[in-house]
Amino acid sequence: MTADFQSWASDRQARIETFLESRLPKTDCVPERLHDAMRYSVLGGGKRVRPLLAFAAGELASADIERVTVTAAAVELIHAYSLVHDDLPCMDDDVLRRGKPTCHKAFDEATALLTGDSLQTLAFELLAEKCLADAPETQLIMITQLARASGSRGMAGGQAFDLASVGKTLSLPELEFMHIHKTGALIRAAVMLGARCSCHLDESQLERLDHFAKSVGLAFQVVDDLLDTEATTETLGKTAGKDADNNKPTYVSILGISQARELATRLQSEADQVLDSFGESAVRLRQVTDFIVKRKF
Amino acid sequence: MTADFQSWASDRQARIETFLESRLPKTDCVPERLHDAMRYSVLGGGKRVRPLLAFAAGELASADIERVTVTAAAVELIHAYSLVHDDLPCMDDDVLRRGKPTCHKAFDEATALLTGDSLQTLAFELLAEKCLADAPETQLIMITQLARASGSRGMAGGQAFDLASVGKTLSLPELEFMHIHKTGALIRAAVMLGARCSCHLDESQLERLDHFAKSVGLAFQVVDDLLDTEATTETLGKTAGKDADNNKPTYVSILGISQARELATRLQSEADQVLDSFGESAVRLRQVTDFIVKRKF
Repeated sequence: MTADFQSWASDRQARIETFLESRLPKTDCVPERLHDAMRYSVLGGGKRVRPLLAFAAGELASADIERVTVTAAAVELIHAYSLVHDDLPCMDDDVLRRGKPTCHKAFDEATALLTGDSLQTLAFELLAEKCLADAPETQLIMITQLARASGSRGMAGGQAFDLASVGKTLSLPELEFMHIHKTGALIRAAVMLGARCSCHLDESQLERLDHFAKSVGLAFQVVDDLLDTEATTETLGKTAGKDADNNKPTYVSILGISQARELATRLQSEADQVLDSFGESAVRLRQVTDFIVKRKF
Repeated sequence: MTADFQSWASDRQARIETFLESRLPKTDCVPERLHDAMRYSVLGGGKRVRPLLAFAAGELASADIERVTVTAAAVELIHAYSLVHDDLPCMDDDVLRRGKPTCHKAFDEATALLTGDSLQTLAFELLAEKCLADAPETQLIMITQLARASGSRGMAGGQAFDLASVGKTLSLPELEFMHIHKTGALIRAAVMLGARCSCHLDESQLERLDHFAKSVGLAFQVVDDLLDTEATTETLGKTAGKDADNNKPTYVSILGISQARELATRLQSEADQVLDSFGESAVRLRQVTDFIVKRKF
């Protein structure tokens, strides 16, 4: 990670934190406990990978950074809601997230349920704010895109598929299908929504960007599986080795460590190649991709 | 209930059912179990009070019925998601809804969680569809309005307040505060969104309509509390006497049956009075209000 990228990423992470801090209801606003839990689950943690992708795609499209900030925050709220619900006892039943007790551990299950629900709602509230794109019609498309990426044919559908596959042997295409939905869809949405904050890209450019995003989404998941095997709970800030413990099929369980590592590298090359046609304007997207593939947590 | 209203209401209920049926993912679409649970939780039941209000408000504003159908379906999906999550063991832990086992009983808790999540997402997906209002800017306002009504400062916030008040003695204003959020906000959204599908009403008319909707929302809840005391589980299609069993404060526990009944009548009069200025175009809204107050289930 170059010093230049490091400073860019820190700036964007701080920007998204400040924005989310300002838009999440204050803890003295009724119902206080719910608002406390919402802030607890969103603020002060996370790599903010999806916002970084949105910012980088926004830069490629010369989009206004204020617009991209709101948009990136909406995507991050969907991600945060999914983590809160995913950690619940009826799902992954996890106790540690971003180095802290999970929401239902720090509060209670009912509060965690409503926290996830309310974070999802807030995501759409933000994305309907005035002037996030050049035309309000584009903004409606952005909302549609986020909804499709999050719903039963996107992220939530991937989670359902994941639950159904516990203890089963999946083929590589089945595993890929699951991850294209579970994590890939929202990562694609982050890239596409960031780009749509301006009207500089034409449909064929957006299509190429989507192709890029699809490769990055898969690369992200392959690396996630590798880290779950190789890293420690302390480094990850969440329970390591969880997939094996839960008998979940992963890229590592299907391919083995070294082939999974090769796959991540190949997906990064594919992603980079798609960016060639964009020239220098794609530098941040390349850097975020590199960060995603080389990260240690 | 006049024969004329009966036939209007049946038509609109059938319309919303057909529309929801067509837009909910089919059960042969992966992940099948999740889609099955979504359809189970939404179709074939419910009074569709919120859609009826949206249709009636749409008629007052001379809005296109196709637009109102999509909008009303979005509101109903938010309502349906809230029921699925509200019935979960960590919330009200209920086994019966609309005369059938609750979603987590018919399926499982994880599926019910994802079902609620996905129904909420689908609501926003629908509301971002093309041309639901005369201007796309208005549609963004509609999305904002639905989000505010549903989130932590609306419906979900009311549910959190409700949970926190179990076993407590609430004052009448506190009880009202809770219900303005828990059920009132979404009922107001149904009315306002139905009306916004056309641009025929000016801001002062919309404000009066909102005043009407606020009274109807409270009336709905007062009657709900009365029915929970007076009706049987069989008539209600959900567990009767639940509030008393759960030691929850209600209009009946605070005011007693006869004063609660009086309050419902007074709220209906207030609502009707606000409609006076709209003349004949408000006939359906008056009828739906009457249906809400006089219903037996």
